[in-house]
Amino acid sequence: MANALLRRHMAKDLSFSQLAWGAWRLRNSTDIKNADDILALIRACLDAGITTFDHADIYGGYGCEAYFGEALAKAPELRHQMEIITKCDISLVNTARPDHRINHYNTTKPHILQSVENSLASLGIDHIDLLMIHRPDPLMVADEVAETFSQLRQSGKVGHFGVSNFKPSQFNLLQSRLDAPLITNQVECSVLELAPIFNGTFDQMQQHRIHPMIWSPLGGARLFTDTDDVCANRLRPVLEHMRDKYDLPGIAEVAIAWLLHLPSQVIPVLGTMKAHRIADATKSCNVTFERQDWFEILVAAQGHPVP
Amino acid sequence: MANALLRRHMAKDLSFSQLAWGAWRLRNSTDIKNADDILALIRACLDAGITTFDHADIYGGYGCEAYFGEALAKAPELRHQMEIITKCDISLVNTARPDHRINHYNTTKPHILQSVENSLASLGIDHIDLLMIHRPDPLMVADEVAETFSQLRQSGKVGHFGVSNFKPSQFNLLQSRLDAPLITNQVECSVLELAPIFNGTFDQMQQHRIHPMIWSPLGGARLFTDTDDVCANRLRPVLEHMRDKYDLPGIAEVAIAWLLHLPSQVIPVLGTMKAHRIADATKSCNVTFERQDWFEILVAAQGHPVP
Amino acid sequence: MANALLRRHMAKDLSFSQLAWGAWRLRNSTDIKNADDILALIRACLDAGITTFDHADIYGGYGCEAYFGEALAKAPELRHQMEIITKCDISLVNTARPDHRINHYNTTKPHILQSVENSLASLGIDHIDLLMIHRPDPLMVADEVAETFSQLRQSGKVGHFGVSNFKPSQFNLLQSRLDAPLITNQVECSVLELAPIFNGTFDQMQQHRIHPMIWSPLGGARLFTDTDDVCANRLRPVLEHMRDKYDLPGIAEVAIAWLLHLPSQVIPVLGTMKAHRIADATKSCNVTFERQDWFEILVAAQGHPVP
Repeated sequence: MANALLRRHMAKDLSFSQLAWGAWRLRNSTDIKNADDILALIRACLDAGITTFDHADIYGGYGCEAYFGEALAKAPELRHQMEIITKCDISLVNTARPDHRINHYNTTKPHILQSVENSLASLGIDHIDLLMIHRPDPLMVADEVAETFSQLRQSGKVGHFGVSNFKPSQFNLLQSRLDAPLITNQVECSVLELAPIFNGTFDQMQQHRIHPMIWSPLGGARLFTDTDDVCANRLRPVLEHMRDKYDLPGIAEVAIAWLLHLPSQVIPVLGTMKAHRIADATKSCNVTFERQDWFEILVAAQGHPVP
Repeated sequence: MANALLRRHMAKDLSFSQLAWGAWRLRNSTDIKNADDILALIRACLDAGITTFDHADIYGGYGCEAYFGEALAKAPELRHQMEIITKCDISLVNTARPDHRINHYNTTKPHILQSVENSLASLGIDHIDLLMIHRPDPLMVADEVAETFSQLRQSGKVGHFGVSNFKPSQFNLLQSRLDAPLITNQVECSVLELAPIFNGTFDQMQQHRIHPMIWSPLGGARLFTDTDDVCANRLRPVLEHMRDKYDLPGIAEVAIAWLLHLPSQVIPVLGTMKAHRIADATKSCNVTFERQDWFEILVAAQGHPVP
Repeated sequence: MANALLRRHMAKDLSFSQLAWGAWRLRNSTDIKNADDILALIRACLDAGITTFDHADIYGGYGCEAYFGEALAKAPELRHQMEIITKCDISLVNTARPDHRINHYNTTKPHILQSVENSLASLGIDHIDLLMIHRPDPLMVADEVAETFSQLRQSGKVGHFGVSNFKPSQFNLLQSRLDAPLITNQVECSVLELAPIFNGTFDQMQQHRIHPMIWSPLGGARLFTDTDDVCANRLRPVLEHMRDKYDLPGIAEVAIAWLLHLPSQVIPVLGTMKAHRIADATKSCNVTFERQDWFEILVAAQGHPVP
């Protein structure tokens, strides 16, 4: 099964696994009690062919990177089998950041440099494979970000750069100042959040041959349980039908497989903390939907036939 | 009158008439009882200077192309006096397509190639002047479409390519893969549908010196009859005033003339099946509105003064 | 104080002051009773370092330019200390334009040329530093505007060109035809009108290193007085807090300073007719907000935390 995962070409010297694993729930999951549990999960990912690990400084109240780093310190040889992503810029009110009075963004050079130092120290690594600007900052001085990226690359601390939640115009602005391509834009997309499919975001990505990363690829718990959500209720029987037709473990795998058919060749970030779900998720990569089945899911998601 | 129609330069070796005729109502019009009626209509178009005939595989439940082809077979010499357009990609649930379970889109190479073969056979011709992707397909692999277009052009089966209902980002994506320009984007526009004038679609077309084609240039029957439609009711007296002022046959011709003033130099596709309406419509091309009259119609269409 | 105003580089041979003064209220202000009052205001601007004066043919019912010109005639030596901007294209129903039946736009060559002649004569000058298209004209033939600009530049009557209220697609269209860069896009922006910060307008400006000009930088009187305006009411206490914290004369200066922090380096156009307000406004240029204070104002303006 693991061998079924494709590699996504991200840059001349970097590829990601077709699915990534994301740390944002690492500190509030009952499945993870200590660093050993994390290590087991890391091994489950690697065994399944998932080599790409997605972090952000803010995840878990500025705590997930260090927690993950604690696990990685127990098996440092694994570092060379994985790609590590982290993000900067969002600045949250949190006891770990006593000088923050209000949630805000910060793309200044001092903030980005400090954020990278923190992430390297917390993760216990000396190189970040991909650093992202986490959210568009209305105060972003693109020249300053470009200079900062340049310095981080030259120092060897960061290999590549990307963005998250950027609109096409924001992507174009930052890209215009860089001497290397942004290698991805991580955005929200799922059967419950179709916006980037239709608002130009994925068109831009396909045009520039960039693989988008996808956060919240299941659209949250409401796909599975919320009986008041009209859209989720409309989708559930269709996804269940496809689960049975394509012999998938659950509707989560149908929803992930549906994303994997997008022509921009996205990389969904899985948020599960359960090893068996990791193995299940990789089955999403083995499916080729009939085109009409993909549209049946789209129509259920939109609530109307295609025009 | 016919001589009044301008030619629109579409490509080095292709021009269209300023007005096109569209077949989408061919099979559900009481005015057309047989192929001879169609032939009469074709001659009326050609006599009026309308040489551009717009089809799609799906029109009339996948039946209009063959019906038109039957007429054309009676006077094959007319083929060389006309430009023939058709479209592919939309896939409808229809008895003619028993494998279709749901309306969907299909921009794969096998589908496009088969669709072109069907269109050539139905129309009884060996060359399509312009082939369009009928609607943006969220699964479109631009590289695959480009390769398909290339093959179709090399085989001599299709001369030029375009799109329909594409947003600027979708247009840019596909164009980025092609070795020849897309020669048009056929979109809906009328006094009842102003979107492409203001959402960037026509800006993009003018920038690239591409003539948009316009479907539903009258906005449907409600412009003439629907008394519950606030917008149509507001427009009707203004259009009637302009009809009288500019000595036009009816408000349809005012509405078409209004479109012809757009600086992207659009090509409205006429849906009428009546020969006398064809002759009437060409009178739209002879009018030059006073600028303030054009804005009077715009203001009636928008329901508020310009800002 | 005056020395604190930065210069904005607009073109190789043109710079503007960081704040501009706008004439649009010149004829309906009780503070201005005659040309001497205008002259005093001009001197107050120049003393404060504000050298950029923003006009439009239509301001004050086609009357402000002549009123300003009357003042300038009293001290013609001041012309060389100032940059004069004016605009064309909007065509208003007004006794000064008896042939106007409806408010409309006009970007034809004859209209623009005549408008420039009128502006030169009214202002009593022989050179306009910057001429803008005042609003996007749906009938704009970009080639014709380009030819007109070219002629105006060659004649020496206009030095540079810009636009106002243009969307990115409209800006790109016109720019594509010009042999020199558009040097600005004057749009509405304030704590009560955030659109250009998020809709791509300022992204485009920063990308092209163009300084936007800002009209209505205070959002009108409701920021100060309207107690029914939910947004203004939410903003007022925050602005008052910042006024005290940064020792500014009033919340107007806070609102202007907030705009000056935008990374596209905007040029707000002040509408005040009071000399002491001019001096006050320049204090906006001396402030550097803490980043979190800037976001506190943004959050009050939006009514929700940043995502």
